[in-house]
Amino acid sequence: MSQRRFLVSPADLDQDLVELAPEEAAHALKVLRLTPGDGLWLLDGAGRRARAKVEAVAKGRVSCRVLERETPPRPWPRLVLLCGLLKAPALELLAVKLTELAVDEVRLIPTQRAVPKPKPGHEARLQRLAAQALKQCGAAWAPLFHAPQSLASALAAAPDPARKVILYEDETGQSLAGALARPPAAEEVWALVGPEGGFTPEEVAQAQAAGFIACGLGPVILRAETAALACAALVRFNPVPGLP
Amino acid sequence: MSQRRFLVSPADLDQDLVELAPEEAAHALKVLRLTPGDGLWLLDGAGRRARAKVEAVAKGRVSCRVLERETPPRPWPRLVLLCGLLKAPALELLAVKLTELAVDEVRLIPTQRAVPKPKPGHEARLQRLAAQALKQCGAAWAPLFHAPQSLASALAAAPDPARKVILYEDETGQSLAGALARPPAAEEVWALVGPEGGFTPEEVAQAQAAGFIACGLGPVILRAETAALACAALVRFNPVPGLP
Repeated sequence: MSQRRFLVSPADLDQDLVELAPEEAAHALKVLRLTPGDGLWLLDGAGRRARAKVEAVAKGRVSCRVLERETPPRPWPRLVLLCGLLKAPALELLAVKLTELAVDEVRLIPTQRAVPKPKPGHEARLQRLAAQALKQCGAAWAPLFHAPQSLASALAAAPDPARKVILYEDETGQSLAGALARPPAAEEVWALVGPEGGFTPEEVAQAQAAGFIACGLGPVILRAETAALACAALVRFNPVPGLP
Repeated sequence: MSQRRFLVSPADLDQDLVELAPEEAAHALKVLRLTPGDGLWLLDGAGRRARAKVEAVAKGRVSCRVLERETPPRPWPRLVLLCGLLKAPALELLAVKLTELAVDEVRLIPTQRAVPKPKPGHEARLQRLAAQALKQCGAAWAPLFHAPQSLASALAAAPDPARKVILYEDETGQSLAGALARPPAAEEVWALVGPEGGFTPEEVAQAQAAGFIACGLGPVILRAETAALACAALVRFNPVPGLP
């Protein structure tokens, strides 16, 4: 049943009977050829999902009966990625992969060396891509994509107790894994990743003044999107308390 | 000088004067507009690189004088990825990203549920993509892409002392990070990642019989290429001995 996942609004998921949006209904009927009685999952992209079954099908419309709602636990720690503004293909890759890696928030920052300029509606497009990725991976929520914001305002948004790291290719003495592992265990990680071309020294100093620890990722220069993915993987798949 | 990297053969890198291949020379002249005296890096993709300078330029040809050769230490531990055969876009993404993440070898396996079929020359195309990625990231070598091989022969190739893991979505009791961290520290990691659709239970049993530890990556179903990237990041960016 891995492909039988459909997006609905959080309000719809409160109902006992949910009608799929036209695009979702078309997928259910034309690709998956669902018929009444077939099981499926409804995802609201905001933390809840429900087992459901097709109740009725008529004229391109699909109504579903909700059987059981669930609210899966969110991965721990919370993970917020601050990312220099990248070109569209790199951001689109991130929208998909960061959804699989259960990143909680993405804040895009037009840093000094970032080449692309912020465009209106950019974050809405990434949010739509993340929603599609959600259906693939079965997660219960997608990262929240904020509108592009200044470095100063993104830094100021990080709460004091969060573990704050900035990935900086000139840092050779502090590993990211080491910074993440410092006790006490962080409830929340805020990770700042540069654009293509990296940060200026002033930006690094600004982040450090805001409590971000400069961390290196080894001798090879990762592309910005690779660094973001590697960082998310490291946070998500470090040893989980209680598991060997 | 981040973009002034050029690929040459290992044999050429032994010479004091190296002529760039036509495609590389065209890039040097038409895009970067290099002139005699300009500095650049020559990479052989097999572990060595050299600082060099443009000696002469004529009729689309560029000859370079080698100033200093270096053999950077390879990242530790050695990392071999065994990967179910994926569709071309996923493999192409991996060819680039696994180069940045300094994976040593990639062995593609037409597992039972793998949809694409092995094609002659496939690994050569991935090797070329990895070589291009090398120029981007400045690494001294690219992963070696083997021709597709059976699961049995890939499993048999793993040396006894290697840490061997298989990523399996039904495994919930053993984390990948935990398996990697088991003492003694492994000199070599062999990681087996499924195709889209995952492994059959028989394949998992076959890998376990060959000493591979089944590990989970959390409740979300990662796409195969995302799992491969996450695994490589976790191996590469775990705490480095001697670094905080």
